[in-house]
Amino acid sequence: MNENMPKHMARGHQRRQQVLELAVGVATAEGLEALTIGRVADISGFTKAGLLGHFNSKEELQLATLKAGRASFLQAVVEPAHADAPGMRRMVRLLDRWVEHVVQVRGGCFFASVSAEFDAREGRVRESIAAMMKEWIGGMEFFLKEARDAGHLEEGTDVRAMAFRLHGYELSLNLRRQLFGDEGVLQEARAAMHAELRNAGTRAGRRLLEQELEARP
Amino acid sequence: MNENMPKHMARGHQRRQQVLELAVGVATAEGLEALTIGRVADISGFTKAGLLGHFNSKEELQLATLKAGRASFLQAVVEPAHADAPGMRRMVRLLDRWVEHVVQVRGGCFFASVSAEFDAREGRVRESIAAMMKEWIGGMEFFLKEARDAGHLEEGTDVRAMAFRLHGYELSLNLRRQLFGDEGVLQEARAAMHAELRNAGTRAGRRLLEQELEARP
Repeated sequence: MNENMPKHMARGHQRRQQVLELAVGVATAEGLEALTIGRVADISGFTKAGLLGHFNSKEELQLATLKAGRASFLQAVVEPAHADAPGMRRMVRLLDRWVEHVVQVRGGCFFASVSAEFDAREGRVRESIAAMMKEWIGGMEFFLKEARDAGHLEEGTDVRAMAFRLHGYELSLNLRRQLFGDEGVLQEARAAMHAELRNAGTRAGRRLLEQELEARP
Repeated sequence: MNENMPKHMARGHQRRQQVLELAVGVATAEGLEALTIGRVADISGFTKAGLLGHFNSKEELQLATLKAGRASFLQAVVEPAHADAPGMRRMVRLLDRWVEHVVQVRGGCFFASVSAEFDAREGRVRESIAAMMKEWIGGMEFFLKEARDAGHLEEGTDVRAMAFRLHGYELSLNLRRQLFGDEGVLQEARAAMHAELRNAGTRAGRRLLEQELEARP
């Protein structure tokens, strides 16, 4: 938010953000299709006309909700990576924040939910979900390459294949946790992710990984 | 179907099966919540009253659709395993049929779709999905144990952790194929699954795996 924004605009912006936070929660649990203007008016205390003033249509509300979900994912998982040393350390912390985020958010992984909901449809909502998912997969591949370039992962490491498998562990974690209420599975996902980094790690990379894991409470 | 079933009952059974096949397709693409009596009446040519005579309620229709999805999964993926030699060969063929099934069915993995849809809800439909998913995970673990007992996987193989990772590859395959239309990802999923079996394989097990893979067109 721009600090020089006039007060009434700032208030409007803030209320819009509050609505979108609620909307991300509803979409994670019940799907983006549950985001009707009437339903969101009910839970947010907005009037239908007020909501339509902000979002114009159900589809605009869905698209804005996706953007809000992306922003909160970036903030929780990706942005803190700037503070980590590039390479193995940054990669292991990124994966840890990812699984932490999945288990902390009520309803589990927002993007796994909405992908499953829209993957057999056409239109702007599906395109937006696909673009965001590609962005995250590309991000993982970028950080894996960075670790390879830093000499922490073996030169021959296939970063595309590794990102495919890492994503699988997150999806398997999310499914078991959401469907069975199995909390122990977080440990299983972490172990699988760390094993990927260990198996592809160079000597220097493995040493950094073990330092990182030993330093944990 | 019982061959001694009176003709009018057999016909009723057959029409019920036809409806459920359509219902599995709708649920995969649009979700179990799209299975309203009115909608299914429209696409099946049944009257609403006729459908209600078969299924009583939307929830009964959803539960029957889950059973039909399970039956078709068992038939395509699990039942042919009886014809395979137990151990590595049975395991690799089982995984191949699994990924084949996921890519052949329009809309992708039925159980991934309905899990994502119902994993934040309560009730009989969710319980039924969770029971079926547990059954399949248990099945994978059973076949992995069998391969371990046959001396084809190393004694120390953690079958629970391996089933967790294998499931992840299927979920990652399904997500990328459905969302990006990426057909090449089937090869990626297969490679990840075969690498799991190779890495945990004993010498005898790896020989069987390579024989199996070489025999392919």
